[in-house]
Amino acid sequence: MNLYEIARFIEAHDNYEILTHVYPDGDTLGSGFALCMALQQIGKNARVITTNIPSKFLYLLKGVKQQTFNAETIISTDIAADSLLGSNMSKYIGKVDICIDHHGSNTFNAKHKFVDKYAAANCEIVYKLLLRLNVKITEEIADCLYTGISTDTGCFRYTNTTAETMRIAASLMDLGCNTAYINKVMFETKSKEKIQLEHAVYDTIEYCANGKCAIIYTTLSMLERLNIGDDEMEGLASIPRQIDGVLIGITMREKEGGFFKISVRTNDNINASDFCSRFNGGGHPAAAGCTIEGDLKTVKNKLIKAAEEFLWTE
Amino acid sequence: MNLYEIARFIEAHDNYEILTHVYPDGDTLGSGFALCMALQQIGKNARVITTNIPSKFLYLLKGVKQQTFNAETIISTDIAADSLLGSNMSKYIGKVDICIDHHGSNTFNAKHKFVDKYAAANCEIVYKLLLRLNVKITEEIADCLYTGISTDTGCFRYTNTTAETMRIAASLMDLGCNTAYINKVMFETKSKEKIQLEHAVYDTIEYCANGKCAIIYTTLSMLERLNIGDDEMEGLASIPRQIDGVLIGITMREKEGGFFKISVRTNDNINASDFCSRFNGGGHPAAAGCTIEGDLKTVKNKLIKAAEEFLWTE
Repeated sequence: MNLYEIARFIEAHDNYEILTHVYPDGDTLGSGFALCMALQQIGKNARVITTNIPSKFLYLLKGVKQQTFNAETIISTDIAADSLLGSNMSKYIGKVDICIDHHGSNTFNAKHKFVDKYAAANCEIVYKLLLRLNVKITEEIADCLYTGISTDTGCFRYTNTTAETMRIAASLMDLGCNTAYINKVMFETKSKEKIQLEHAVYDTIEYCANGKCAIIYTTLSMLERLNIGDDEMEGLASIPRQIDGVLIGITMREKEGGFFKISVRTNDNINASDFCSRFNGGGHPAAAGCTIEGDLKTVKNKLIKAAEEFLWTE
Repeated sequence: MNLYEIARFIEAHDNYEILTHVYPDGDTLGSGFALCMALQQIGKNARVITTNIPSKFLYLLKGVKQQTFNAETIISTDIAADSLLGSNMSKYIGKVDICIDHHGSNTFNAKHKFVDKYAAANCEIVYKLLLRLNVKITEEIADCLYTGISTDTGCFRYTNTTAETMRIAASLMDLGCNTAYINKVMFETKSKEKIQLEHAVYDTIEYCANGKCAIIYTTLSMLERLNIGDDEMEGLASIPRQIDGVLIGITMREKEGGFFKISVRTNDNINASDFCSRFNGGGHPAAAGCTIEGDLKTVKNKLIKAAEEFLWTE
């Protein structure tokens, strides 16, 4: 189905449940709540199904009406695979009418799909869908869409950002979206715990391969001492990669059970996925991951050895 | 003069020197080199006059031809006051033909002026000027203009960013500007020294006023120990303000001569300029500064006392 056909399908149906992915981010929530408000505006019943919404995203619900109805039509937003449905949504597997997504790798099970891998954010697709539904994009809807677009592009900084991304954001700004508030909350606010964690992680920075590789780590005892949960770990992996001269930035996170989760970020076309494949991991060319068993020293030494071999033989 | 008139003036003259401001940033350099390449493209002689250009900006010169000529016409870009000319440019005071700027506070001495305080970056104005000069915006010119716009808006994050800013950036992306490279160098790269400095500064974070004020500092001995110069200090002042719950973020930097330079950044409409006026300083509502004499402990205690008084009486 193309977007025009999806719009006609939506007009012909009613009583919508809109699914978002587990560990919800700005793009799945922005997509879901924007679509929900749009459907309510054109006279449909609609609600969004989520797992726990981080409190910083609660403003996205501002314009949403609570409605009681029996669900008939199911739409998923930004969900690339069945496994990304929260445990409270397993009953929907195989029952989704329309899947709207921007992940090229999409394998989600749905009757109809619209997947545009060139969209920087799923909210770009939802924006275009709303134009085809003749919805008035209110300030609240614009806030949702801008949130998804800005968070999925690192505020227009990542390489997925296109000229079209910028023009859609411009249109949302014309419509009154609250960029000052959203950018402040999403990009200019760190919890005191996050600051403490970054401080502790800075203590662990170690260079190898003549400064071309930098490694940081967190341990279980460090997180316990600082009383910090997994939700503060976001963004840590970008620290070693952004150091001037570093080609391979490695973040090691100790997990329960005697192993480390490894995140690898690379610069200058060094292939992170190839690097991680040495440890049976993989991912994207500039961002990949793997898992290595062992204690801190053993795992770190394995990574240092691999990084030096990898860089010298490139 | 409006931009159309400036374009006609430029066409009627030749042998241009383009001035940039002291401690040059992305916007003054991007404006200067974009304009220089544009003038050369329409058959004029042109060169840019600068003080030391930080090495990360050297790519801006990629498309500039070196030309030998006697200067006749002087244009300033992004220079708000005579005092912002570098010491090598004092001979130009009073001799500037055209001043192009986006600072509402502009007092620069020039025969003709175009100042648009609503432009997020001076490069937005230069972009519009080039359209009126019928210049083909090459990839090199687009890189210069994008650099100015992205750096002056914190990559489209600051509140000066408008829908027009986004649309101009989109046009520059259509024209092939290298956003991936520019964003990486400007926003995703920190020197090893900067990382060390941030680490040291995290050690100094102190909260007062029930967590509503955060203070960080650098001392001369700290900078000496880390062998860090003034050019690494950029961006430090944003650290305390971005901590969740902080309304007043204060950065103290010890200077030779027994005093501290204080930078104050505020959230939620707390007036930073009013706060700094208590120490005979001033600035903008959300970003201001002052100077306080004394040793670390004395100055910090004065600031803590002032912050608590200020917040409790607001």
